[in-house]
Amino acid sequence: MIIKLEKVKLQTRKAEEAINITQSVDEVVERSGVKNGLVNVLTCHTSSGLLVTEGIPCLEEDILTHFSRLFPEDEDYHHRRYLDFDGRLGFNADAHLKSIMGGIHCMFPIEDGRVVRGSRQAIYFMEYDGPLERTYMIQVLGE
Amino acid sequence: MIIKLEKVKLQTRKAEEAINITQSVDEVVERSGVKNGLVNVLTCHTSSGLLVTEGIPCLEEDILTHFSRLFPEDEDYHHRRYLDFDGRLGFNADAHLKSIMGGIHCMFPIEDGRVVRGSRQAIYFMEYDGPLERTYMIQVLGE
Amino acid sequence: MIIKLEKVKLQTRKAEEAINITQSVDEVVERSGVKNGLVNVLTCHTSSGLLVTEGIPCLEEDILTHFSRLFPEDEDYHHRRYLDFDGRLGFNADAHLKSIMGGIHCMFPIEDGRVVRGSRQAIYFMEYDGPLERTYMIQVLGE
Repeated sequence: MIIKLEKVKLQTRKAEEAINITQSVDEVVERSGVKNGLVNVLTCHTSSGLLVTEGIPCLEEDILTHFSRLFPEDEDYHHRRYLDFDGRLGFNADAHLKSIMGGIHCMFPIEDGRVVRGSRQAIYFMEYDGPLERTYMIQVLGE
Repeated sequence: MIIKLEKVKLQTRKAEEAINITQSVDEVVERSGVKNGLVNVLTCHTSSGLLVTEGIPCLEEDILTHFSRLFPEDEDYHHRRYLDFDGRLGFNADAHLKSIMGGIHCMFPIEDGRVVRGSRQAIYFMEYDGPLERTYMIQVLGE
Repeated sequence: MIIKLEKVKLQTRKAEEAINITQSVDEVVERSGVKNGLVNVLTCHTSSGLLVTEGIPCLEEDILTHFSRLFPEDEDYHHRRYLDFDGRLGFNADAHLKSIMGGIHCMFPIEDGRVVRGSRQAIYFMEYDGPLERTYMIQVLGE
């Protein structure tokens, strides 16, 4: 069994951003030598997300706009107060809620050395609380 | 290690529909010969979904109704314009957003050759933009 | 290949509750003897959930409050009527919808015998229809 784990760093540029990372996943799978198995991709941060949708800019806009419609920044959140353990004001409850709603992980099969996904399925890293340096993980498991 | 991947075709009949596919997952797991391991199920389309809930019709209705309440078809979406690369009008942003909110993948353990799930957990293929011919994948991995 | 499945019982105390189960996942992974692989965690109940977020009480409150804002208990649900097969009134549609929106499963890699996750990622069992005795599953797979 081959098991490979890569951590990929990513500098986001905006407060909210959808970044297509499909190619980096394909490359890690190719490098892994796994012919049959699966790939898991997940973010390491609770105010970011990871999801699968069609890779077109207007849809990226729609996700960010309509997630914010459901979880507006100025709602009356509990997580909007001084946090002793952090030494700073917590104020990103909306980012955490978007992360939960949109998800933080995706999985695809690998067959004949290639990620098997639908023709329109692109993998996105979702920044909900940037700009920040972020990390996501790509794990390949198989033989 | 046994790794089997099956692609299952499905003709949906309505614009929106929740289709219980639990039995097809059980059958693929049984045919695979895997005694201990896991099964991943995922849709191949970004305007459809895959989720787990109780297998009762009134709940199927509630999912479709209340997903549409949160993401109405006539909201002001960016993805509602002529798409050059597609040669047609994109107009299904609500379907993509429902797909993201409800999810596109589920996973269950396999023990003694059987899918281990809660007594009320049924697996649903969710059509949000039909009727269309759809494909979902069932991957079984184990020994 | 090592494949271990543990079912963990949990008595919830409130109608809605977010319970941090990160430590129990770490302990099962440690006991499993798996050095490299992955851990899947999932709930067995369709009116409960399982998700990953930062482990702080104000955020637990926000999840429960704002999930209920999107899926209020007193909405006009179809699943609010006598269910013959159950011999009782179904009245927890909001719990099922929260379960779907927030998710029921998480996955993390295992490296050098330890769960690899972001420094703020905590694993939560989400009770949306308690108090009840609940079960969640932890599956460890690797070598």
